[in-house]
Amino acid sequence: MMGAVLLSEFATEIVVPVCAVIGIAFSLVQWLLVSRVKLNPERHASGNSNKNGYSDYLIEEEEGLNDPSDVTKCADIQSAISEGATSFLFTEYQYVGIFMVAFAILIFLFLGSVEGFSSKSQPCTYDKEKTCKPALATAIFSTISFLLGAITSVLSGFLGMKIATYANARTTLEARKGVGKAFIVAFRSGAVMGFLLAANGLLVLFVAINLFKLYYGDDWEGLFEAITGYGLGGSSMALFGRVGGGIYTKAADVGADLVGKVERNIPEDDPRNPAVIADNVGDNVGDIAGMGSDLFGSYAESSCAALVVASISSFGINHEFTAMLYPLLISSVGILVCLITTLFATDFFEIKAVKEIEPALKKQLIISTVLMTVGIAIVTWVGVPSTFTIYNFGDQKVVKNWQLFLCVGVGLWAGLIIGFVTEYYTSNAYSPVQDVADSCRTGAATNVIFGLALGYKSVIIPIFAIAICIFVSFSFAAMYGIAVAALGMLSTIATGLAIDAYGPISDNAGGIAEMAGMSHHIRERTDALDAAGNTTAAIGKGFAIGSAALVSLALFGAFVSRAAISTVDVLTPKVFIGLIVGAMLPYWFSAMTMKSVGSAALKMVEEVRRQFNTIPGLMEGRAKPDYATCVKISTDASIKEMIPPGALVMLTPLIVGTFFGVETLAGVLAGALVSGVQIAISASNTGGAWDNAKKYIEAGASEHARTLGPKGSDPHKAAVIGDTVGDPLKDTSGPSLNILIKLMAVESLVFAPFFATHGGLLFKIF
Amino acid sequence: MMGAVLLSEFATEIVVPVCAVIGIAFSLVQWLLVSRVKLNPERHASGNSNKNGYSDYLIEEEEGLNDPSDVTKCADIQSAISEGATSFLFTEYQYVGIFMVAFAILIFLFLGSVEGFSSKSQPCTYDKEKTCKPALATAIFSTISFLLGAITSVLSGFLGMKIATYANARTTLEARKGVGKAFIVAFRSGAVMGFLLAANGLLVLFVAINLFKLYYGDDWEGLFEAITGYGLGGSSMALFGRVGGGIYTKAADVGADLVGKVERNIPEDDPRNPAVIADNVGDNVGDIAGMGSDLFGSYAESSCAALVVASISSFGINHEFTAMLYPLLISSVGILVCLITTLFATDFFEIKAVKEIEPALKKQLIISTVLMTVGIAIVTWVGVPSTFTIYNFGDQKVVKNWQLFLCVGVGLWAGLIIGFVTEYYTSNAYSPVQDVADSCRTGAATNVIFGLALGYKSVIIPIFAIAICIFVSFSFAAMYGIAVAALGMLSTIATGLAIDAYGPISDNAGGIAEMAGMSHHIRERTDALDAAGNTTAAIGKGFAIGSAALVSLALFGAFVSRAAISTVDVLTPKVFIGLIVGAMLPYWFSAMTMKSVGSAALKMVEEVRRQFNTIPGLMEGRAKPDYATCVKISTDASIKEMIPPGALVMLTPLIVGTFFGVETLAGVLAGALVSGVQIAISASNTGGAWDNAKKYIEAGASEHARTLGPKGSDPHKAAVIGDTVGDPLKDTSGPSLNILIKLMAVESLVFAPFFATHGGLLFKIF
Repeated sequence: MMGAVLLSEFATEIVVPVCAVIGIAFSLVQWLLVSRVKLNPERHASGNSNKNGYSDYLIEEEEGLNDPSDVTKCADIQSAISEGATSFLFTEYQYVGIFMVAFAILIFLFLGSVEGFSSKSQPCTYDKEKTCKPALATAIFSTISFLLGAITSVLSGFLGMKIATYANARTTLEARKGVGKAFIVAFRSGAVMGFLLAANGLLVLFVAINLFKLYYGDDWEGLFEAITGYGLGGSSMALFGRVGGGIYTKAADVGADLVGKVERNIPEDDPRNPAVIADNVGDNVGDIAGMGSDLFGSYAESSCAALVVASISSFGINHEFTAMLYPLLISSVGILVCLITTLFATDFFEIKAVKEIEPALKKQLIISTVLMTVGIAIVTWVGVPSTFTIYNFGDQKVVKNWQLFLCVGVGLWAGLIIGFVTEYYTSNAYSPVQDVADSCRTGAATNVIFGLALGYKSVIIPIFAIAICIFVSFSFAAMYGIAVAALGMLSTIATGLAIDAYGPISDNAGGIAEMAGMSHHIRERTDALDAAGNTTAAIGKGFAIGSAALVSLALFGAFVSRAAISTVDVLTPKVFIGLIVGAMLPYWFSAMTMKSVGSAALKMVEEVRRQFNTIPGLMEGRAKPDYATCVKISTDASIKEMIPPGALVMLTPLIVGTFFGVETLAGVLAGALVSGVQIAISASNTGGAWDNAKKYIEAGASEHARTLGPKGSDPHKAAVIGDTVGDPLKDTSGPSLNILIKLMAVESLVFAPFFATHGGLLFKIF
Repeated sequence: MMGAVLLSEFATEIVVPVCAVIGIAFSLVQWLLVSRVKLNPERHASGNSNKNGYSDYLIEEEEGLNDPSDVTKCADIQSAISEGATSFLFTEYQYVGIFMVAFAILIFLFLGSVEGFSSKSQPCTYDKEKTCKPALATAIFSTISFLLGAITSVLSGFLGMKIATYANARTTLEARKGVGKAFIVAFRSGAVMGFLLAANGLLVLFVAINLFKLYYGDDWEGLFEAITGYGLGGSSMALFGRVGGGIYTKAADVGADLVGKVERNIPEDDPRNPAVIADNVGDNVGDIAGMGSDLFGSYAESSCAALVVASISSFGINHEFTAMLYPLLISSVGILVCLITTLFATDFFEIKAVKEIEPALKKQLIISTVLMTVGIAIVTWVGVPSTFTIYNFGDQKVVKNWQLFLCVGVGLWAGLIIGFVTEYYTSNAYSPVQDVADSCRTGAATNVIFGLALGYKSVIIPIFAIAICIFVSFSFAAMYGIAVAALGMLSTIATGLAIDAYGPISDNAGGIAEMAGMSHHIRERTDALDAAGNTTAAIGKGFAIGSAALVSLALFGAFVSRAAISTVDVLTPKVFIGLIVGAMLPYWFSAMTMKSVGSAALKMVEEVRRQFNTIPGLMEGRAKPDYATCVKISTDASIKEMIPPGALVMLTPLIVGTFFGVETLAGVLAGALVSGVQIAISASNTGGAWDNAKKYIEAGASEHARTLGPKGSDPHKAAVIGDTVGDPLKDTSGPSLNILIKLMAVESLVFAPFFATHGGLLFKIF
């Protein structure tokens, strides 16, 4: 019945790591290319630098290229941002370290206790005649893979932020030569982040599987159960990245704006504002490190979910290694596809005008999706038997390889649709954002109402796309289908991250241009880059939440399998109360994160006010503000404020599973998933739309826009209010919900054996 | 096994209608008492009225009592409001009429087609040996009961609005004598509405059951299936009341504010504003008629859901009429309990100071709940056998009478908890609203962020209360338990509606005082009444959504029973896509209703601007604005704008049921329920909090409040923006969600036989 697999096990063992290494090498090349833009800060210390460092630029000189003080200023600002970001990350890592150790111990204790820490082998769950490794081994290896996932995530986030802060000033300097050059630097730096993360994630997972196999041998069920810890590790770091980083970035941003723009009436990114460096640091820790860790978490989790489900399929039972590693093969091909796609942006074509930026980024999405469709077809053809069997909550289900291709493909294309819809609702090239901008005529209230309505409306098509994707993949290949559909959506993660990271880099470049007092034209160019970046950031968030929804569902399915529940019937009280309480959790969580931003921003406001009041000459530009204190306040506040929402995420599955049992927990996961995905999409699109409505009025590029502007007009003031409301929605509470739904699901999956054995205490007592 | 029922069938046939008639009589007495406050408009036409009409007031004269021109002005304004409201209702009724006829035909066709319009008797569903009435009879009687429900709802709404517009000017006039007198008039008028609605609803349902019984005889299954049409009728009128009324009220309110407060800088309720009458009409059509039809719908639906489930329980099979009518007995006792409770507010105690208003209203909730607990105990003791059997999706479940008592009781008390939590989050006596007010210091953006976070947070405890309520009642008595828990929550509906309707009456009274140019002191008194009214309105909305959640779940359960589904398993693709799309619907619906308010308000803005620009002397108060045109614009716009959201609600179950089948529809209902209830609670609490934060700053009753005020200060302006954002949330999109979740559920229930027979076309084709 089972067909042969064309790709041999040996070939698989070669192909996967080679692709990963190619990805890493490619990202290093990109880094090298970015580094060719010289900052030469060391020469400017003396004050009389010669122009050798950038003499090769003189031929294409356009704007102030021969002004060395610009370079010095940019280098200084960049190093301040870089230091701030590094200081945040290292402070965060202290807490991450404590958390990792504590949670690793918890994992070990919970999973070890399932069979009372016995080191004896046990009969396998699905094939009672064989013996499998003891629960104690699962406990140990789950803990190890948890740590591996966590460390990989931290490392990728750290490197991503390093390159981002390395590239921002370089983008500013390139903007003197034109928008095309600046675009390439920003985009290449984003690509460094994207490829490093995708390739590292793949490589570590591959190595871990091969090492674990040395111990587990033929017990693939145990092996891939232990591997799920990798997803949990990646995802729990995303908690720090997304939630902590999200609070950081918006506390700094809102705090800076409230005093700077509102009270002191100085422009955004004005160097006199003490919080301005913290604001720029925030773009990096929130949007780069946070987004990276979020997507890495999704990637790791969907891989693990697919693997754990596959381990009890015919692949796993027949020990077909190539087919088993199908998820990793998809990701390997994804790296190659993204590599080619990147060349379209950086080498094959060149951007010459502002209006070409958004189409270029959009083309990245389309090219990568089309190429990847071919890639998936090839991998599925060579890597999977023509027919195989998977387990579907106790039943067996026969899947054909073309069906599996459709599962992955539908996920990939659903991602593209979500991306396009997000673009439509958040780009100021289309009517939704223009309508929101128009509503500013009647004041801030109508702006807020229209923005909220836009966010609600923007949920419709993505949800239908996700629903169709779920229906197709679920019908063809049950939970395995969902997991590979999520992988399909994430298969172009390197490109997705590149265009996403491009946004904050451009934003920072603009900030640096403003702070360095560079010419009006340069600021216009960086603003154009940034406006496109807002849209791509929204697209990235759309991808992130779409994939999070699929991943959570896959993890949910894996959890249900592992907890040995055969139905999750809404018509039982245990499940229904889980469902309604689960649907409430995203609201609770959002209230917490929004309040966290508020409290942290308030602390920032006080500090900025204090500096303006106590540092003489600051307002007049004669004295320098104390940037470092603001960075420290943001850092400390964000770490402190992320504890309550973090605790809610981490404790809910433990409490519900332990006291109410697996059925209620299944309800909670389903409820949080279907409710959270809606709020996350609407929050991030609402915020993106407000931001771009403001930019639309500021840019004044159309007749309509000019009737609303200029900066400082009443409609513009109303637009600024909307933008400020949107900040925590789009950068903190919205994206953090991805973490809520994924982390609860993966945690439930990892602890499933414990809950199935010891859970539901409350019902056992009564 | 079954115990005897203490209350004989004959006694039941007496008790229920007698209680209903007592309720109607009581409401007429209240009306009579309100009418004692004379407006005497006919005497003022001559301009030289004598004081005979209110000479009996002279002894307690306080403020301007001897100024006849006040009375004339109030009477004029009142008649304008009353005319506007009546004109809206009659316009609405034309559409309602068309809708009712069309939908009645649809019901007849869909249900009649189940057995191909055969008039032959069929074997019963649950007892194949007996014969039951044909599907054609169900079609006919469902259509009749649909019409009965619709007409009862329309009638109750109409009468409620009549008394409300009758009472508002009288409240203003009484406010001259003190806050206590005004409170009593407003409260009595609310009670008229509450008792009329509760008693009418009960009486019509009782009569219908007895008349239908003449045809159905012993086929109680068919009888009570047909009765479900009553719930559908009530609920579909609520669509017009809540959604149409909600759009009306906020279009007028927002439109009036945008031009009046923002552009022309004239105070709220200023008679120069052409939209001011439309605004006051809106309070009546939205908050009185809309809320009334919403709660009537819930009441009718929960009764029907309980009856249809009971018809296949041991009551139904053994034909125990008293036990069968247990839901009606609960409502009968509820009327008596509320009657006594009302006397506590109007006769036993008297309000003497502003600060006593809120506690007095709160006491109403507590007293009615405590008394009703005793009432439920008695009814359960005399009306239900000590042990009985109900059907639980195929299984049988034995229920003891004390368990049933707990089901009703837990619903009742959950309602009280929801009420208190709502009060805590929306009253400016507590810290949440004060914090929101405080956040206005840093501008409108922080006000909006804090308000949204407050709304999200306010969901937590109500959801836990609902979850506990569901768990207890579901565990004890399955779907019958849920239905009677909903009835428990609604058993004090007369009191709930009285304190709810009190709000808009006081609001109108304040508006009339302002328009009539009455003294500062009178306005302060009506403002105090109104502030308490904002909180009670929020409490009323909390009750409405809490009961809607329970009712929908009960209807959902009844639908699942009737559609013969045994499990609704989240782990099947059909159900899961239903769940996620269902969870999206409240967002789609909210986007539509918010946009409707926006469009309708924009039309109003244009008209108000036109009048200010073209009517000479309007701004100076020398010319009168054209109120009637504004009323007409609001009326037409609201009817037109309610079509898209109305279509979404009405068509979704039909499309999903017909094309995707009953499992997907079950998923949609569950998803919409668990997601909608959260948005509804958070939207109405956010809006209430913003409104009261503004009032808190305006009133300046504490040291803290005075640092934020006075009217016109920057924090106050920020608070006004929040208030305006909150208007459509709390009065349109939020409460309309009740209709979404209930109406989809009851429609699914009514059409269940059709979907079960002919549904799921799409899956049948592929």
